[in-house]
Amino acid sequence: MEERGKLAREAGIKLAATDTKTRNQALLAIAKGLETHKAEILAANEADLKRSQAENLAAPLLKRLVFNEVKINDVIDGINSLVELNDPLGATKLATELDQGLDLYKVTCPIGVIGVIFESRPDAFVQISTLCLKSGNSVLLKGGREALETNRMLCKVIEDATLSAGIPKGFIQNLESRDEVNAMLALDNYIDLIIPRGSNEFVQYIMNHSNIPVMGHADGICHVFVDDDAQIPMAIDLIVDSKTQYVAACNTLETLLVHESVAKDLLPPLKKALEAKNVHLKGDAKVLKIIDIEAATEEDWKTEYLDYILSIKIVPDLISAINHINTYGSGHTDVIITNDNEAVKTFMTLVDSAGVFHNCSTRFSDGFRFGFGAEVGISTSKLHARGPVGLDGLLSYKYKLLGHGQCVSDYASGQSHFTHQPKNTDCPV
Amino acid sequence: MEERGKLAREAGIKLAATDTKTRNQALLAIAKGLETHKAEILAANEADLKRSQAENLAAPLLKRLVFNEVKINDVIDGINSLVELNDPLGATKLATELDQGLDLYKVTCPIGVIGVIFESRPDAFVQISTLCLKSGNSVLLKGGREALETNRMLCKVIEDATLSAGIPKGFIQNLESRDEVNAMLALDNYIDLIIPRGSNEFVQYIMNHSNIPVMGHADGICHVFVDDDAQIPMAIDLIVDSKTQYVAACNTLETLLVHESVAKDLLPPLKKALEAKNVHLKGDAKVLKIIDIEAATEEDWKTEYLDYILSIKIVPDLISAINHINTYGSGHTDVIITNDNEAVKTFMTLVDSAGVFHNCSTRFSDGFRFGFGAEVGISTSKLHARGPVGLDGLLSYKYKLLGHGQCVSDYASGQSHFTHQPKNTDCPV
Repeated sequence: MEERGKLAREAGIKLAATDTKTRNQALLAIAKGLETHKAEILAANEADLKRSQAENLAAPLLKRLVFNEVKINDVIDGINSLVELNDPLGATKLATELDQGLDLYKVTCPIGVIGVIFESRPDAFVQISTLCLKSGNSVLLKGGREALETNRMLCKVIEDATLSAGIPKGFIQNLESRDEVNAMLALDNYIDLIIPRGSNEFVQYIMNHSNIPVMGHADGICHVFVDDDAQIPMAIDLIVDSKTQYVAACNTLETLLVHESVAKDLLPPLKKALEAKNVHLKGDAKVLKIIDIEAATEEDWKTEYLDYILSIKIVPDLISAINHINTYGSGHTDVIITNDNEAVKTFMTLVDSAGVFHNCSTRFSDGFRFGFGAEVGISTSKLHARGPVGLDGLLSYKYKLLGHGQCVSDYASGQSHFTHQPKNTDCPV
Repeated sequence: MEERGKLAREAGIKLAATDTKTRNQALLAIAKGLETHKAEILAANEADLKRSQAENLAAPLLKRLVFNEVKINDVIDGINSLVELNDPLGATKLATELDQGLDLYKVTCPIGVIGVIFESRPDAFVQISTLCLKSGNSVLLKGGREALETNRMLCKVIEDATLSAGIPKGFIQNLESRDEVNAMLALDNYIDLIIPRGSNEFVQYIMNHSNIPVMGHADGICHVFVDDDAQIPMAIDLIVDSKTQYVAACNTLETLLVHESVAKDLLPPLKKALEAKNVHLKGDAKVLKIIDIEAATEEDWKTEYLDYILSIKIVPDLISAINHINTYGSGHTDVIITNDNEAVKTFMTLVDSAGVFHNCSTRFSDGFRFGFGAEVGISTSKLHARGPVGLDGLLSYKYKLLGHGQCVSDYASGQSHFTHQPKNTDCPV
């Protein structure tokens, strides 16, 4: 693995120097490769599906493992959209004249080498590797073992396509075993960032077993708060969508907070709507006075169910709702349903989460829905990238300073003086 | 400490909601407070100096500990400049219409609570706390124990001034013991970021003893590469400045790389110039053939001397210089001296460092010189902030999504469609 890490780093440095056209042509070559090798990819996926069925993989997981013609076409469409996006590299983010003939530029560059560990979804393999290619990063991928054959084939197609387009060897590497993952976690000399996608426990395990920075989300305990002047039918629709549209996702609603003045109007029809979707409800003492459901415990407010379960709490006011969210939430996505713009502003300012939404579903918290093309993951950290992470989260920057022999001693002695004037030009090199 | 951490977090959430005017008036109140309480501050500093002299503190450290009228006026000037800067909070970094009536905004916000551990320099206490105030972050400060009395007085002045200006209590907290620092490192529930300033060992210690993200630099092994067409007099001036202008700084030159075709012209006069400044030279075998100095070992290329020592290596070409820097460097600041623009471009693209400079001193790598007003530290990480860290490095962002009842199920079913149109408006809330 050490050799592979070194190769990835060397490839990453060369990749950072490739121009827009080379990286876009490599992306198009991948799209063409997927088209040309469709039959082999489908056969590999068929083998994965067959083996996983024999191993009694659960139906929703089998569904995610499927990589059929429709999905291949979807990822090809995704690659074409990625080609259309502006080059994220080499963008001048700040330009300052420090003194005459001494110009500072802050210019975007790749992070370097990124390790991604993800679920058994072959479309994710293509999305992640193409996002890394567009942003000039080398990538080490470890998909779920159920997708072994498909990922191996996809890696070969992507490697062949990118090599032919002039992308350095080693930019993409497919890991196939847990041993390789463990070896990767030790390569802090060569790998700049690990993105683990999976359960809270899994992300914690990765964080505890590597000195490499980790970008991920520990938990997705998302809230909806129904304020006192919310429209009840809209609230019911949004709660049902947030809870049931896809129950195993990190952006799914887990705890509902209800302003006490609307509880009596909201809770009975909401119970009906959620029970029709087989959602099991739990409530605090005040909720139980209005609808007959199971009592919630302190533990419920801290729980990410990832299941058809919803905990409900009645709060006296907006600030109590915000305090509950900041105490028990995970900083992922929280929604206020209200018609009061002042309440929206207060909620959005004080709730300390990556996503603060008004009158819409928690489920919009997603890189594709946000228009990022795709996402490599969702971050609940407040450093570097927060929320759904697309191309922008895969960038770093450099300060380029262009001088004509200036020494600091002349500024320290007062012989020269800084001008510190903003400039409107892009970095010339 | 747990209570203090909690108080800092609560203050941070309220501080995030303060407007530009409140934070700027609080900054002005600090400036006024420093003016009003000048005599008490000077007396406290006198006590620190007296005690440190009795403890035989080294002269350069005593010099940094001094907080006299000139330095007080300097920090007041710094605060006034900070007031002039645009509010870093609430800036809309991205606006996208996801669909009609469903608008996404990426808006800057504070990180939250920041812990800073720094050297015995009272001006740093004021700079760090005012940068945190401007950017809406709570801050826990632990300065060197030599500055105990001065920092205690400064904290009181800043706390009184900010409280009177409506900034929440607990925004600033002064730590005075190593036990408090150790307790702080455990508060990952309340503290979002630790910035340790100090030696490599110290930063490593902090990283190994906390789950809180750490921003800092592990090492400052900075290089100058003299290319084959460099102007020799300019090269000598820049090398002397980079090595000797302030020898204990992280942005000081440690290893000089010389293109073999200029070595004979450069090294003899350079030796003279550096030895006049009492710099001890070490060189590889090729260097020793030209000038009579100590032989360098493999260990030298990995060493941050922070002293009047310079290691010199002759390289056959630009790419060898770049490979040396990417192998032995610390990603801090590296300089190319050349007249060849193509070489500049290659160097700046391939050298994987926070600062890549052309024809100027390594010593420019500094927040004040970069025009950031001040810096809270220098980062050699490629995530979040890189290089000198000013206000921008103290920011995070939120995604605010403003809807009218939209559910994801309608987009999944194909009943609604994303438009993903860029918008030119700032977030209205």
